[in-house]
Amino acid sequence: MLAFCGCRLDRADHIRADPEALAAQMGWRARLLALDGLLPGMDDAGALQWRSLADAAPDAELVFLGLDDGKPCFAAVPERGDNAPRMANPALWAAMAALSPADLALYGAARSLVDWHARHRFCANCGSATTLAKGGWQRNCSSCGAQHFPRTDPVAITLVEHVDGRLMLGRGLGWPEGRFSALAGFVEPGESIEEGVAREVLEESGVRVRHVSYVASQPWPFPSQLMIGCHAYADDDAIALDIAEMAEIAWFTRAEVAAAMSGEDGARFLKPLDQAIASHLIRWWLRRVG
Amino acid sequence: MLAFCGCRLDRADHIRADPEALAAQMGWRARLLALDGLLPGMDDAGALQWRSLADAAPDAELVFLGLDDGKPCFAAVPERGDNAPRMANPALWAAMAALSPADLALYGAARSLVDWHARHRFCANCGSATTLAKGGWQRNCSSCGAQHFPRTDPVAITLVEHVDGRLMLGRGLGWPEGRFSALAGFVEPGESIEEGVAREVLEESGVRVRHVSYVASQPWPFPSQLMIGCHAYADDDAIALDIAEMAEIAWFTRAEVAAAMSGEDGARFLKPLDQAIASHLIRWWLRRVG
Repeated sequence: MLAFCGCRLDRADHIRADPEALAAQMGWRARLLALDGLLPGMDDAGALQWRSLADAAPDAELVFLGLDDGKPCFAAVPERGDNAPRMANPALWAAMAALSPADLALYGAARSLVDWHARHRFCANCGSATTLAKGGWQRNCSSCGAQHFPRTDPVAITLVEHVDGRLMLGRGLGWPEGRFSALAGFVEPGESIEEGVAREVLEESGVRVRHVSYVASQPWPFPSQLMIGCHAYADDDAIALDIAEMAEIAWFTRAEVAAAMSGEDGARFLKPLDQAIASHLIRWWLRRVG
Repeated sequence: MLAFCGCRLDRADHIRADPEALAAQMGWRARLLALDGLLPGMDDAGALQWRSLADAAPDAELVFLGLDDGKPCFAAVPERGDNAPRMANPALWAAMAALSPADLALYGAARSLVDWHARHRFCANCGSATTLAKGGWQRNCSSCGAQHFPRTDPVAITLVEHVDGRLMLGRGLGWPEGRFSALAGFVEPGESIEEGVAREVLEESGVRVRHVSYVASQPWPFPSQLMIGCHAYADDDAIALDIAEMAEIAWFTRAEVAAAMSGEDGARFLKPLDQAIASHLIRWWLRRVG
């Protein structure tokens, strides 16, 4: 199971779409996810902490996350969101390492949602203030009538394999020295996944790919990506690096990739984060052809 | 090739990210896509019409679509967008049928983009007016500094196959009598594609699926979806219809599906639109197991 997948909540669309049913869930059985800004509140055992709805600020907007074994779960929208594309927050990394997979998935879904609300309090169509609706799965503008929905931004992330068996990986701008991962970019309006893969790889590396295939997907809550993991082949290994997008791009042999993924001393690169789909893709690739 | 795929434009990210390079493209070689609101301007042969930048309204925001064989292509943001989830516009259907696949793909990409601008002139974070940036691939708020990017909303659309070989299809609310297609829904924050498929199918039909696999993808510019076509298996065929989401859901035999896709008289249902990925998925399914 990929990190952030496997959220145990039943999103209970029939409840969130029904104001009366939703109001009925906001009783003494309801639980409020403990958040410090966007950081998870955790107990000493590393589990997510829960409070009661009464612990929310009086004017807080509440998002209905879903039912956990029948118990209604909510989260309060924090004052501020955080759309930083990269997670430079050590406290967050520590929390991600400590949480169980199930808690991490629940936290990720909640974080994406409340962060979106915190950064979308106004109507993009007319500039008026909007109000939370449908248990937090919508915002409505009472001025122009526009409805707004939480964003999920599809990102294609691709393992490019040369026909000679080597793998292309890249180091992003600002990443630590030695850290390499799969090339990634947002799928843009007017593109299929496969077209997005081909454009991004060409832009960043100058390499043309063919035979793009889908491998796996993962939600990534920083702030709210849908990571779409792909594989593609390249015939030509000549790299033309786009220094505006990437710090380094290089080809690695199977043995070099295996050494890095095992964390061997002297490996040619540092493996991607365990929680990232890039690690899953590379392990899949090592298993598949190895 | 799926409809709306295969746009021939080079999006030329190195140009749109560079204000000087972009300005240099706005000369006499530049072409402006003819649009009537969001409808395509077409010549008598059914091809997209192009004008010069001078034909844009003096205060129009211009989006850089990319390079067509080296020629810079732009579109002007119309006064009004259109976020109607379904296309009830006969003129649009006629245009879609008349345009060549390459022109349709270009039109779709342009439509998604200019429609997004028309409906996102204000900052969702603070309510201030925003300005077009990066050739139309971004909007900036000068008040709070927020950056906004065109949306691409991932939608999972799924062929559910019973282990006995029948296919589940549904008729959406407001669709013509007899028209059936694959079940679809937005992938939400905190979900993988596979989890989104399972939730949507369960919500709409009451049927649990397993073994979700990816088949194909397609951009769908009404207003800006990324359609992610999947296949899944079901063991239990008992349908519990959600009447808030669907008008009908039913199982069809292979012969019934084949008859409908051939447009036979007396077929049990009307096939989905040719341009929709649902048609592609069903044809793929008929070929695969047939």
